Amino acid sequence: MAKHAVPMNAVDFYFDFVSPYPWLASHQLGELRECTAVKFCFVPVLFAALLDHHSNLGPAEIPAKRRYTFQDTQRWAVHLGWEFKGPPAHPFNPLKPLRVTSAIESDDLREALAVRLLDAAWSEGKDITSDSVIYEVADSLGLDGQELLGKAHTVEIKERLHLQTERAIRAGVFGVPSFVVNGEIFWGNDRLHLLKEYLEGRLPTDRAKVEEMLSRPRAADRSTKQIE
Amino acid sequence: MAKHAVPMNAVDFYFDFVSPYPWLASHQLGELRECTAVKFCFVPVLFAALLDHHSNLGPAEIPAKRRYTFQDTQRWAVHLGWEFKGPPAHPFNPLKPLRVTSAIESDDLREALAVRLLDAAWSEGKDITSDSVIYEVADSLGLDGQELLGKAHTVEIKERLHLQTERAIRAGVFGVPSFVVNGEIFWGNDRLHLLKEYLEGRLPTDRAKVEEMLSRPRAADRSTKQIE
Repeated sequence: MAKHAVPMNAVDFYFDFVSPYPWLASHQLGELRECTAVKFCFVPVLFAALLDHHSNLGPAEIPAKRRYTFQDTQRWAVHLGWEFKGPPAHPFNPLKPLRVTSAIESDDLREALAVRLLDAAWSEGKDITSDSVIYEVADSLGLDGQELLGKAHTVEIKERLHLQTERAIRAGVFGVPSFVVNGEIFWGNDRLHLLKEYLEGRLPTDRAKVEEMLSRPRAADRSTKQIE
Repeated sequence: MAKHAVPMNAVDFYFDFVSPYPWLASHQLGELRECTAVKFCFVPVLFAALLDHHSNLGPAEIPAKRRYTFQDTQRWAVHLGWEFKGPPAHPFNPLKPLRVTSAIESDDLREALAVRLLDAAWSEGKDITSDSVIYEVADSLGLDGQELLGKAHTVEIKERLHLQTERAIRAGVFGVPSFVVNGEIFWGNDRLHLLKEYLEGRLPTDRAKVEEMLSRPRAADRSTKQIE
């Protein structure tokens, strides 16, 4: 099948710093870029708001899943050959770095800052909720951290992060990272191979099939006590 | 590094028919068997009981995640070149096929029946909660479906499924499929490459590191309203 059969819209990369999985995904986009000439648009969202909207629980809120998540992240880091220190406190409030990143208009610069902040938190073990770390990371990219932090506290940027999160919810996003292209969601750093096949036109989604499956009856639900 | 550096205990494969992911995993074990000489032990568990225990929600209980799960399963099926019809009703009550499978003492026969039932439900679109489908599938393996269904209704086998589920919970399992070996959990059909590396001794888990991460402070939780 021909390459580039899928219209080359930018792929929205929805992320929050609080999850290690956007960090794992962020450094694995090179192959997709080479093979598909796709553009990624890094979109900061508040994962806690996604959980609230979907009445879902995050991995940090279920003890067995919290333990597994750290174990799994450590394995991915070994698998990829990366350093993994993890943030000094977790979960942490990601609003400040999310707003600072949202304040950057350029897709390329926003991505660069996001990747450096993800690295700072998950690889280098830094507290990216502190002003000094944000200054340091911004400075390393030639960005004015003080100006970005000033913007981060404005109503405009707070509202921008809110709208980005709303956009993710409208697209059907419930977790991070999620890649959204042409209305299709790919959730997780472990779906990059499927995203690649999709972008190369080798993985058609049969939307009618999905709708038909959703229309089938539910034969058992926990709430109806049909399960003994 | 030498192969087989990990003691070759059997790997417990915890599964429930209600999820498509054990189906996706079940046909991808050949490479692991070839490379690592590992033995898998298929252990039926009630996913709903795992959810209850962890106060978690299943994909079928969150509309956006339910949609995504069918979409994702369809993509995996295309990726793997498999037929995907899905069960006539979903979620369905999996107790009967879980108990029928639990009634088989031989690991090899239990696996064979489990794989055929997973195929019947997810690939062929059959209702595996019906006696006639269970008879048909058992018969195709030379098993006595009537005898197995008789056993499935006994207190002994009901208790066995309960104990298997309890064992999974004690091991830290919260989802299916989960592979457990030497106290290590690998969750999902998308972790088979990490399980393979682990079994080959190329993916050491630093348990002390995981414990240390778990001991770090929590700086923000949704319930404490630290997130605006």
